[in-house]
Amino acid sequence: MSKKNKTAISPTRDENYPEWYQQVIRAADLAENAPVRGCMIIKPWGYALWENMQASLDKDFKKTGHKNVYFPLFIPKSYFEKEAKHVDGFAKECAVVTHSRLEASSEGGLAPAGELDEPLIVRPTSETIIGEAFARWIQSYRDLPLLTNQWANVVRWEMRTRLFLRTSEFLWQEGHTAHATEEEAMAETKQMLDIYVNFVENMLAIPVIPGRKTESERFPGAEETLTFEAMMQDRKALQGGTSHFLGQKFAKASDITFMDKDGQEQYAWTTSWGVTTRMIGAMVMVHSDDNGLVLPPRIAPSQIVILPILKDDETKEKVLEYCESLKAELENKAFGDGFLNVEMDTRDLRGGEKLWHWIKHGIPMFLEIGPRDVDSNALVVGRRDKDPKERGPQSREEFLSTVVDQLEEMQQGLFDKAKAFQQEHTVRIDTKEEFYKFFTPKNKEKPEIHGGFALAHWNGSAEVEEQIKKDLKVTIRVIPNNSEAEEGKCVITGEPSKQRVVFAKAY
Amino acid sequence: MSKKNKTAISPTRDENYPEWYQQVIRAADLAENAPVRGCMIIKPWGYALWENMQASLDKDFKKTGHKNVYFPLFIPKSYFEKEAKHVDGFAKECAVVTHSRLEASSEGGLAPAGELDEPLIVRPTSETIIGEAFARWIQSYRDLPLLTNQWANVVRWEMRTRLFLRTSEFLWQEGHTAHATEEEAMAETKQMLDIYVNFVENMLAIPVIPGRKTESERFPGAEETLTFEAMMQDRKALQGGTSHFLGQKFAKASDITFMDKDGQEQYAWTTSWGVTTRMIGAMVMVHSDDNGLVLPPRIAPSQIVILPILKDDETKEKVLEYCESLKAELENKAFGDGFLNVEMDTRDLRGGEKLWHWIKHGIPMFLEIGPRDVDSNALVVGRRDKDPKERGPQSREEFLSTVVDQLEEMQQGLFDKAKAFQQEHTVRIDTKEEFYKFFTPKNKEKPEIHGGFALAHWNGSAEVEEQIKKDLKVTIRVIPNNSEAEEGKCVITGEPSKQRVVFAKAY
Repeated sequence: MSKKNKTAISPTRDENYPEWYQQVIRAADLAENAPVRGCMIIKPWGYALWENMQASLDKDFKKTGHKNVYFPLFIPKSYFEKEAKHVDGFAKECAVVTHSRLEASSEGGLAPAGELDEPLIVRPTSETIIGEAFARWIQSYRDLPLLTNQWANVVRWEMRTRLFLRTSEFLWQEGHTAHATEEEAMAETKQMLDIYVNFVENMLAIPVIPGRKTESERFPGAEETLTFEAMMQDRKALQGGTSHFLGQKFAKASDITFMDKDGQEQYAWTTSWGVTTRMIGAMVMVHSDDNGLVLPPRIAPSQIVILPILKDDETKEKVLEYCESLKAELENKAFGDGFLNVEMDTRDLRGGEKLWHWIKHGIPMFLEIGPRDVDSNALVVGRRDKDPKERGPQSREEFLSTVVDQLEEMQQGLFDKAKAFQQEHTVRIDTKEEFYKFFTPKNKEKPEIHGGFALAHWNGSAEVEEQIKKDLKVTIRVIPNNSEAEEGKCVITGEPSKQRVVFAKAY
Repeated sequence: MSKKNKTAISPTRDENYPEWYQQVIRAADLAENAPVRGCMIIKPWGYALWENMQASLDKDFKKTGHKNVYFPLFIPKSYFEKEAKHVDGFAKECAVVTHSRLEASSEGGLAPAGELDEPLIVRPTSETIIGEAFARWIQSYRDLPLLTNQWANVVRWEMRTRLFLRTSEFLWQEGHTAHATEEEAMAETKQMLDIYVNFVENMLAIPVIPGRKTESERFPGAEETLTFEAMMQDRKALQGGTSHFLGQKFAKASDITFMDKDGQEQYAWTTSWGVTTRMIGAMVMVHSDDNGLVLPPRIAPSQIVILPILKDDETKEKVLEYCESLKAELENKAFGDGFLNVEMDTRDLRGGEKLWHWIKHGIPMFLEIGPRDVDSNALVVGRRDKDPKERGPQSREEFLSTVVDQLEEMQQGLFDKAKAFQQEHTVRIDTKEEFYKFFTPKNKEKPEIHGGFALAHWNGSAEVEEQIKKDLKVTIRVIPNNSEAEEGKCVITGEPSKQRVVFAKAY
C-alpha cells in the first residue's frame, strides 16, 4: 500500500470523485447501504462522529436556553395539510403508514391489515405536530419565548440516495421556537445560524459562507431561510444546515396565539432550524485524500492510536507495558472539552496492514512502538495530515510535551487548507459567456469537475434561477451575509443588481 | 395547597391510583398524550430524565466494550418473517408503511400514492435487520464478540396506552451482540442484566427482583429471557427491562456464521437486551406521593431549586446577589459523575405557587431565601422526601457543608422505603385458597388494590399460568435468581416443585 504512487483508496479523487467518496466511507467503516431502499446503517466509527457532533451542539443549544423534547414519529395527514406550501414541499416524498398489523393472507405469507381511519405520515420534519402542542402550551407572553429542540430520525423518500448526503431516513436535530415579536424570532434565527457556523468551522474545520436563501430555495413555508454553504473538493457546494424564520405562517396554521402585555391576543412568531448526519458526508468530502478519511482532531472519536510492534514473546511484555503507560499519560491530557482519546491496537496483524487500517479510518495520529523505541524511550509518530512516509522518531518526552499543540495545529491546518481551496475556486464573474464557460465541464468524462463558486450579480428573479438550473444545473446557493453592497448588473439579464450572490452546482 | 389534609395531587393514591399517576405526570410536566393515537409528547422535564438515564447507561455499555450504531427504522416484511415465533409475537401490533407519497385525490385532499412493492414494518425491535448485517460483518472467530447497541424509537401498536408505561411509540436502547460460544453469549446476557439492575437500584432507587422469565413470558424467539421486576405502590409488578439469550435461533434465521479456530463453520450465538422510557413511569409510580413527583437526587435534572423571595425593590438586589453566589458555590460541589445542578426561579409568582410548582416537579431540595435570611447568612431548606411543613432554617455554612450528604441520604432513603414496601407486600403462599384470596381485591371499587407479590411453588406448566391469568389476571413475573432451592408443592396443582417463583398482577 505504501509503495510510490499507489494509494489506499481506488479510484482516486481525480479518477472518479463520486466513487472515491463511496470507497472512503467503506474503507473507514463509517456506514453502508441498508437492505431497505435508500436507508443506511451507521457503523460504530461513523456513529461515534455523530455522537461527538451531538454532544458539541447540544451543549451550545442548552447554553442558549433551549430544552430537549420528543414529539411523535407519526403526523396525522390532516395536520400535515395545515400549511399549504409546507405540504406541497413534502407530499412527493413521504412514507405513509396505512395499516396497524400484519395478517396471514390467502396468497400465503403476511399482508397488511387493520387499515387506519387516517393515514399517518412518518415525519419529514415536525413543524405541524409541534405547532399543535405549542398552541396548547402558549397562553400568555409569560410563556414566551418557548425554546425547544429534538434529536430524532426523519424520513424523506429520496429517489437517488448517497450515504450521508441524501438518504431516505436520516438523523438530525430540529429546533422549534416561538417568540412574542418578529425581532426576537429573527434574532433567534440568526443566533442559531451563528451557532452552526461556529461549530462547523471550529469543530469540523470546514470553512463556510453564511447567508440567506433565495425565495425559491427556501424551506417550504418559511419566510426566510438562513443557511451556510461549504465547497467540496470537486468544487460543488453542500448546504450544511438551515435556520428558518417562519414568520406567523405556521402560528396561523396551528393557531399559536398568546395574550400580550396589553391583553391583546396575538399570533406568535416561530422559527425552526436543523442540521443532519449530512455533515458527516461534508466532512468526509472536504478533508479526505486518496489514502482515505481524514478527521479533524476535535471531532475524531479518538485522536491517537498506539500500534505496538509485537515481534517476539521476549520483548512483548516490555513493549505492551511501555504502550500502556504512554496511553495512560496521554489520556490525562486535556483536549477540547475533555481529554485525549487514545486507541491501542494489539490485534495479531502485519504491521503495515494495521497502520493502513488506521490511516484509512482517518485517525489524526499514529504511534508505532517497538522494542528499540522502548529502549531509547522514544516512539515513531505519524500524522494523518502529512504523507505517511514522513513519519519519524520523537523522544517520548518531546512528544508528550507537544502532542496537544500538534493536534491543534492539525485542526487549524485542515481548516486553512480547505479555506484556501474554497478561495482558489471562487471567482467573480461578470459576463454571461464567462458564467456558462465556468460551469461547463472541460472534460465530458468527468462532468463533476467544473469551475467552482461564481460570485455574480443577479436581478432577483426566479426566472433567471430556473434558466440556469435548466441550462447548467446551477443554483443560487446563498446570498452571503458579509459581501458588501455593490452596484452591478445581473450576469444573465444585464438588469440592475445591488449585491453579488454565490452560484454553484450543489449536492 | 399546604393546608391540612389537602394534597397537591387529586385524586390521591388511595382514592384512585391510576388517575393519580396521570395527574402526577401532568403536574410535573413530564409528558402528555399526543394527537396521534397511543403516542406521547415528552416534555422538557421528562426528557431531561431520559437524557440522564441514557448518559448513565451509555457509559456502562461503553465501559463493557459495546459500540453504538444506527440501523434503519424500516424493516422489509420479508426480513420480519424470517424467524417464525418472532413474527408471530409482533405481527398483531406493527405499523405498516405501504406508500411513498401523497397525491391529490378525486375526493379532495391528499391520499396515499406510490404503493411500495414490499410493505415496510416500522421496527418494533431490530433483531431481523441487524441479523442481516451481522451475517455480512462476521466471517471469522476474530470478528467475535461483536458488541453493539443503538438508541432508537420503536413502534408497537398498542390498543390501551398509558403515558410512559405503554405507548405505541417509545424510546429505548437495544443491545445486539454475537459470540463464538454459548457460554460467552450467556455471560453477556447475565452481564447486561447486572448492569440494568445496578443502574435501576443505584440511580433510580428502585429495588428489584432479578431472575428469568417462564417460557410463556419470554421475548418472541428467545431461548431465555432474564428480567427484573419492581413493585409499584399499588403492589402491582412492573417489568423494568429484559436481557435475552437468543441461542442460535436468530443466527440460523439470518445465517450468521463464522469460521472457528479449527476452520469449521459455526453458527454464532446472539443476545439482545433493552430498557425503555417505561423506566420513567416506574420511577414515578415507586417514589411519588400525594403532592406529586418525587425524584431520586442522582437522576433528577436538578437537585436543588433556589426560590428568592423578592418583596420590594429595596432588598431585591441584595437577595438576588446572595442567591447567585449560593448557586455558584453549589454548582461547584461534586455530585455523582459531575456536579450539582441548581435551578433559580425568579419568576414573578406568589411564593406559595412557586414553591408548589417545584414540589410537584419532584425537585429534591428547595431553598427559600428572603431579606432576613441574607442578613443572618442563612436559608430555609425543604426536602422533597419530607413533609413540606418540616422545612426550616439552616445557616448557609451548615447547609453547604452537609448538602451532598443530605442528597445521598435522600437517595438511600428512597430506596430503603421502596424496599420496605416491597418486602411488606411480598408473602409466601402455600395454598390455592390463600393464593386466590391474596389476589382478589377486598374493595370492588378499587380493583387495583390487592395483596402484592406472592412467592409460591409452581409445577412448571404453562397450563397453570394460563389458568391463573384467566382467573385472576396474575402471571409469573420472574423466577428469582437468589431464592434458595426448596422442595415444595405447586400452589395450584399440588404437584412437586423445586423453587418458589414470583406471582403478581402486572403493568
